[in-house]
Amino acid sequence: MPTLNRLWGHRVALLLGDYLFSKAAELVSNLNNRRVIKLFAQTLMRVSAAELEQGLSPWELKKRRHHYYRWIEDKTASLFSAAAESGAILGQASKHQIKALKEYGFNLGLSFQIIDDILDFIGDEEEMGKPIGSDLLQGHLTLPVIILLEREPDSSFKETFASGDIEGLKGIAQRIAQSPLIIEECYTIARGFALQATKSIESLPFNPISSSLIDLAHYIISRKK
Amino acid sequence: MPTLNRLWGHRVALLLGDYLFSKAAELVSNLNNRRVIKLFAQTLMRVSAAELEQGLSPWELKKRRHHYYRWIEDKTASLFSAAAESGAILGQASKHQIKALKEYGFNLGLSFQIIDDILDFIGDEEEMGKPIGSDLLQGHLTLPVIILLEREPDSSFKETFASGDIEGLKGIAQRIAQSPLIIEECYTIARGFALQATKSIESLPFNPISSSLIDLAHYIISRKK
Repeated sequence: MPTLNRLWGHRVALLLGDYLFSKAAELVSNLNNRRVIKLFAQTLMRVSAAELEQGLSPWELKKRRHHYYRWIEDKTASLFSAAAESGAILGQASKHQIKALKEYGFNLGLSFQIIDDILDFIGDEEEMGKPIGSDLLQGHLTLPVIILLEREPDSSFKETFASGDIEGLKGIAQRIAQSPLIIEECYTIARGFALQATKSIESLPFNPISSSLIDLAHYIISRKK
Repeated sequence: MPTLNRLWGHRVALLLGDYLFSKAAELVSNLNNRRVIKLFAQTLMRVSAAELEQGLSPWELKKRRHHYYRWIEDKTASLFSAAAESGAILGQASKHQIKALKEYGFNLGLSFQIIDDILDFIGDEEEMGKPIGSDLLQGHLTLPVIILLEREPDSSFKETFASGDIEGLKGIAQRIAQSPLIIEECYTIARGFALQATKSIESLPFNPISSSLIDLAHYIISRKK
């Protein structure tokens, strides 16, 4: 589907974002649970600060693996974690169970984001609804690119990133898409986090609910869009 | 000062807006007052829905006085009202006092917005930091324009609005700026709301605090920027 931005322009997209933000705040405030309300507000701060930082330094080449993890922790894993933790709190789970579900969400979020970053290179353009390497073209250094840089430190890729040359970036995107070793390394890492997610909830009672959480972790690593 | 949008572009401005939104939500959630948290969320919904509606139908010619009032109630007065009401709630005011302060804020907001809409036509371009008639150029039918339409129903102004012709709109803006009767009618209405604001808090104890609220209402109608 076309984005709202394309259909109605910046102004409407921005205002609808504000409206949805307020609506979410209203739904959360109706829960009358202080802890969940604070978690909601703090998570949104973390997510928006992470996106803002990325917006300010899109070409920071030192932002390698360590920075990448910190970035996806803030922008994605914190949100998945807060969702899982909130459900646990509202379901009156024990302290131990809340911690388990929080960790589940956090690891699931990391796995989800890495798969997202892989699909940006190898996904079907039509199914994804955006061009191959669109993150890279926007200046985001995601895991596949970082691994390419690690594997070929002497290449001219750094200069291409720094220059922001579109054709050069498209070439790099093609290169990654056609490198089974890079893609496989990313999948191995994503699978590791998904496995960690399922391990986090090992101590929960085994029933259709915990089972569906495990299914969700499996789905996340096998999705194609 | 230049806007953030001009300095850093859409993306950063939008993300910083999200960050400030989250920060405000966090500050409010720290108050641990259910009523204020809900009031915050509901007011933001009301404000963003009002701005969104305006974004979707900027040239709605039927949106005359009645619609204008409803619009400024939603986008401005509700925010002033929520601020005054929240202070009253947190200050543990009586039910009667909370209602008085809520009405004060509401009427103050209406007065503030009408003055803002007048200054868009008669304010000093340099002091205001934007061109004369910028609301009109963006397709917003504010009170001065509505009064012009009421006074001259047979003019070709409607066609100019509908066409969105920039030079035509600038001509209308000049016409309003040079019409003392239109400006005076707007001021009379704004003063009426400011007076209503001060009347709303007549029953509060007279002390430096209530006195400063009355000063604020006087300031709002005399401000030049």
